[in-house]
Amino acid sequence: MIKKLINKPGEEVREMLEGLTLAFPDIVRLDPQWNNIYRTSKKPNWKVALVTGGGSGHEPAHAGYVGYGMLDAAVAGAVFTSPTIPQVLAAIKEVATEPGVLVIIKNYTGDVMNFNAAIKMATASGIKVQSVVVNDDVAIAEKSNRRGTSITVFVHKIAGAAAEEGMSLDEVKRVAQKVIDNGRDYGVALTPCSVPAAGEYTFQLGQDEIELGIGIHGEKGVQRTKWMPSAQLAKIMIDKMVDDLKLNKGDEVALMVQGTGGTPYMEKLVFYRDARKYAESLGLKIYTSWVGEFMTSLEMQGGRIALLKLDDELKRLVMAPANTVAIKLPGAITS
Amino acid sequence: MIKKLINKPGEEVREMLEGLTLAFPDIVRLDPQWNNIYRTSKKPNWKVALVTGGGSGHEPAHAGYVGYGMLDAAVAGAVFTSPTIPQVLAAIKEVATEPGVLVIIKNYTGDVMNFNAAIKMATASGIKVQSVVVNDDVAIAEKSNRRGTSITVFVHKIAGAAAEEGMSLDEVKRVAQKVIDNGRDYGVALTPCSVPAAGEYTFQLGQDEIELGIGIHGEKGVQRTKWMPSAQLAKIMIDKMVDDLKLNKGDEVALMVQGTGGTPYMEKLVFYRDARKYAESLGLKIYTSWVGEFMTSLEMQGGRIALLKLDDELKRLVMAPANTVAIKLPGAITS
Repeated sequence: MIKKLINKPGEEVREMLEGLTLAFPDIVRLDPQWNNIYRTSKKPNWKVALVTGGGSGHEPAHAGYVGYGMLDAAVAGAVFTSPTIPQVLAAIKEVATEPGVLVIIKNYTGDVMNFNAAIKMATASGIKVQSVVVNDDVAIAEKSNRRGTSITVFVHKIAGAAAEEGMSLDEVKRVAQKVIDNGRDYGVALTPCSVPAAGEYTFQLGQDEIELGIGIHGEKGVQRTKWMPSAQLAKIMIDKMVDDLKLNKGDEVALMVQGTGGTPYMEKLVFYRDARKYAESLGLKIYTSWVGEFMTSLEMQGGRIALLKLDDELKRLVMAPANTVAIKLPGAITS
Repeated sequence: MIKKLINKPGEEVREMLEGLTLAFPDIVRLDPQWNNIYRTSKKPNWKVALVTGGGSGHEPAHAGYVGYGMLDAAVAGAVFTSPTIPQVLAAIKEVATEPGVLVIIKNYTGDVMNFNAAIKMATASGIKVQSVVVNDDVAIAEKSNRRGTSITVFVHKIAGAAAEEGMSLDEVKRVAQKVIDNGRDYGVALTPCSVPAAGEYTFQLGQDEIELGIGIHGEKGVQRTKWMPSAQLAKIMIDKMVDDLKLNKGDEVALMVQGTGGTPYMEKLVFYRDARKYAESLGLKIYTSWVGEFMTSLEMQGGRIALLKLDDELKRLVMAPANTVAIKLPGAITS
């Protein structure tokens, strides 16, 4: 057993969603049949609806991003486990509008399979659905095998703002794909994490070892190294992304620096400082910073850095109003 | 050595404050001579100024609460170490206004000594200063020995709103003392934490053991027990506070449920659910909920619950506008 502030393994997802909706009833509501989270506010029938989801354990993703300016529905699977087809289908049906539904899928085999099956059934029932697959994890060389990680949150934010502006389904999808094409993420683990039902750590690390290039499911990284200072880690991680995105001096970026779930505030801020200073030393312009927790791995200690190259359209949309549990930007319509 | 996302032990506080002010330059600025954090906005000369601080390692306390509606200055000592007298004096002098300065001190020997010495010197130099000492930690039986923990954050919020309303120094102090008299906190640790410069854990716990009644400096609690489910923990902790505050059915409270720094979002939400459900089963009315991280202990895993009994004045002030890094409530004047 690994100690956690939960009651019984297997009940943590439902109880967490109950906690979320008890704490923020003005923003989110729970469909208890499916563990789906929807906006509390009246369904915005006139705009494209955004649906996403995945296994739990990545909080505040995804339920924390449901609300004005971002998602219409988040589907919560068991910890690190794909949601089921009926669960996804129920979410699409619940929020579907005349302009259509964009489904945002992270690139994991189970997610892609179940979300696509649900999309097929929704389409057959007459709902207009399109989808994008996020594969932003730069640790994997082959692009088609890259996992979906932090950039998913920028897709929620930016495609959500596009939908709120009244863009068509094709346009919202185009913007979502632009975020995927221009965003990269890289993660480092100082410790593993533990799935409640498993009761053991996902891997073992020596006292001075870290894992570079981790996913978000407690997997080992692509490289095990000795601990190194935050600034050195930030350099390695940013170099990798800058190279892959072919970023140049003067490019404007959104910089996301986050803990992996068990990382204290102090370390997140030191890591952000180092990431920002190094990115600026390369001549990148930090247009906006997101610092905190956005796509985590249970109680893992470590960090992730994500870079999103911005153009004028993405700059407008990333700063647009939002009112969700995890992301608030001024100007949101809150009722 | 214990792995952390920092560079060199001893440099983490400065680098964290740099990260904070790089990320939120519109809200906070750093005085690099003293590691003091002040509001970026023009000094509000017409109102009582609020100064607080303490050892670092409790982030987002205290720098995260500097801004409109809360603090004017936060003084950051080394990790778990009192700020120095000159550091506190510099903060009081920097933000002092005609109506005066309220200094908020947590009840620890070093803090009380150094803050009081600085207050004496500030008073001698002609500044109007008063202070309150927060001693909300219900785990200690003798009230005068109780440590200052989470309720400090409600003091920042409520006294800060009182100052922003234009109350006099006496009135702001009265309100701050009312929060202290009506607030209690209780903490539980599932793991210890580690001070960077020490490089070792603050205590050792068995695989199935937890510490009840902890402080915020990685101290052992007042009682070691076997792990128990979140709902059972919440019951024990709330019973203790309800008894000490003599709360009755129908009383309105602010409920704060937080992780201790390394606790993932999922566990914080499950723990909040359980705390809220149990408090409601006793007939308490939850007027507002604060769920997240407010007064932490580095990377410790565990949780704290705080209850604040509200009257009409406290209800108005706790919901008043604020614009700080950690707490935002709508309506704040942000420039």
